[in-house]
Amino acid sequence: MRALEQALRKIKPLDEKAMAAARARQDTLTKPLGSLGRLEELSIKLAGIRGEPIPRINHKAIVTMAADHGVVAEGVSAYPQAVTPQMVMNFLQGSAGINVLARHVGARVIVVDMGVASDIEPHTALVSRKIASGTQNMARGPAMSREQAIRSIEVGLEIIKKEVKKGLDIVGTGDMGIGNTTPSSAITAAITGEKVAKVTGRGTGIDDKQLAYKVEVIERALRVNQPNPDDAIDVLAKVGGFEIGGICGVILGAAAHRIPVVIDGFVSGAAALIAAGLSPVAKDYLIASHCSVEIGHKAILKYLGLKPILDLELRLGEGTGAALGIFLVEAAAKILSEMATFAEAGVSEKSSDN
Amino acid sequence: MRALEQALRKIKPLDEKAMAAARARQDTLTKPLGSLGRLEELSIKLAGIRGEPIPRINHKAIVTMAADHGVVAEGVSAYPQAVTPQMVMNFLQGSAGINVLARHVGARVIVVDMGVASDIEPHTALVSRKIASGTQNMARGPAMSREQAIRSIEVGLEIIKKEVKKGLDIVGTGDMGIGNTTPSSAITAAITGEKVAKVTGRGTGIDDKQLAYKVEVIERALRVNQPNPDDAIDVLAKVGGFEIGGICGVILGAAAHRIPVVIDGFVSGAAALIAAGLSPVAKDYLIASHCSVEIGHKAILKYLGLKPILDLELRLGEGTGAALGIFLVEAAAKILSEMATFAEAGVSEKSSDN
Repeated sequence: MRALEQALRKIKPLDEKAMAAARARQDTLTKPLGSLGRLEELSIKLAGIRGEPIPRINHKAIVTMAADHGVVAEGVSAYPQAVTPQMVMNFLQGSAGINVLARHVGARVIVVDMGVASDIEPHTALVSRKIASGTQNMARGPAMSREQAIRSIEVGLEIIKKEVKKGLDIVGTGDMGIGNTTPSSAITAAITGEKVAKVTGRGTGIDDKQLAYKVEVIERALRVNQPNPDDAIDVLAKVGGFEIGGICGVILGAAAHRIPVVIDGFVSGAAALIAAGLSPVAKDYLIASHCSVEIGHKAILKYLGLKPILDLELRLGEGTGAALGIFLVEAAAKILSEMATFAEAGVSEKSSDN
Repeated sequence: MRALEQALRKIKPLDEKAMAAARARQDTLTKPLGSLGRLEELSIKLAGIRGEPIPRINHKAIVTMAADHGVVAEGVSAYPQAVTPQMVMNFLQGSAGINVLARHVGARVIVVDMGVASDIEPHTALVSRKIASGTQNMARGPAMSREQAIRSIEVGLEIIKKEVKKGLDIVGTGDMGIGNTTPSSAITAAITGEKVAKVTGRGTGIDDKQLAYKVEVIERALRVNQPNPDDAIDVLAKVGGFEIGGICGVILGAAAHRIPVVIDGFVSGAAALIAAGLSPVAKDYLIASHCSVEIGHKAILKYLGLKPILDLELRLGEGTGAALGIFLVEAAAKILSEMATFAEAGVSEKSSDN
């Protein structure tokens, strides 16, 4: 049995008993009922994911997956493809946005080369799992083979397995890949059924004319490839990307190990659509960190039934939103585990006659 | 000259030069222009407040001010007044929501008795500055004298002065006081001109009937006292509270020392209305942490022109939202100071022809 099939079989629903216990405990803590709003909700979801009434978060990681996209030949991005390996080097040197925010929340960053088009010098902190040197141009044919799609997912599974051994209580997803909002929009349109123009944004910053052309390229890719929305692997293979497959694997691997996955923005969202297509139950392990400026992200969150924690008008990717999200999930966990109950603190409860 | 007058004279506009330098630096960091959205905005505001192009945040504090309210005699709260001192004890023991979240963000908590109705046992961590044992019932006359109002503000100034000596780069505000959404709604209605019913919420959790009565009590307080909206001290004295005055002092003191103030929810917002009435420039030193469930908070944020960073459906007070807000401001500061520029990292900039 392949690793992917094994992982899918391991994914189980949330633990209702742990959630009920967490909910009951929240109601005994020294605060008006429900007054910590979404932090309370998050703590209860976390209990269900971990299968523990009072889950604790010690080990945090962000997996940032990088790859290139053949479709950039069509001129869909504002930045040259050379930026992908340059930014990977920036990650490895600890100087990019994701490094700064991951340090701020105490999370380690795992940088994975899933298929950057050029060679990257070996580095102790780089996990090299190049499926190929960039995808093919999806505007002319499938981005990758079905086998490559499955292998990209299995890299994500493998990484989670390794990280779990080191200790992992929560994981965030991140992406880097010049041009990768283009396959993300294609996946979103294919799976949610929304019109391409409604789920395609400016990525790193293209103008109106380039945006219209980007929409046209994506429409062409969908027409040429005819991805089957009921077969998530087919969608990933035809109009996806290697880092998107890798992130999908991180999600499925985390769900299989009962680890909460804080997803970043639009590209991670597209990976989540593929993951949910393979395992509807995996959706329950997702926590949406923020609502991206990329317009397609809203359609993804709606389709997956996820409510983002933050709305900071971010659109950087890399896992930056996920890092901030991890901090808030940790806050929620600490509320549940560290606050005193009314009985412990000797605080009077709500007046019954009032 | 009184301490209040001195502080008001010391408050100066934001430093435009530092802001321009911070903005220019943001545009050279290795990310698409503007892609960190509100984090970039926050870093620029912070630079203007601190008067430094690359401000750093090391010392963080949350000042949580507690007091009681004579108006609880009218039955406007779901909890008995005894909860105010009980919660103060809970703060001092480090087991309340604010303690958990302040520890999570590395901020010290300063707990101040501004006027709790009962005696609180001395405690090394408690700053005792009781103006009186609770305010008078504002539904029947002024909550406090004009002199008490000024003294409550001066306590906040004094606390900031002391904390600055220990090292302070950012401060959050918090409140505790059974019944204190009632004066907060009265202040909001008096200053913004909104109808009482539009700015009055359920506080710790009253039902429809009690809410209607609470609105009636606040309308009566405004009718009986006729606070002058152009005289913020008059509003504070007639329909305010000692902790609200204290928080107002924290805001003004922080602004006078060029320290950013992250305000919590509705009660801190009411204090910010008083502070802005005394010094319109002080508004620029405010960062709104979150949007409270208390409906009056929206009217305050709109009036002050503040956009909250978080929307987590919180309504606990204590400074809990401010703690989370401090974490995000710190994230913004670190982005500005720790990220590499394009030149430093050797990353290509946006294609000019693309």
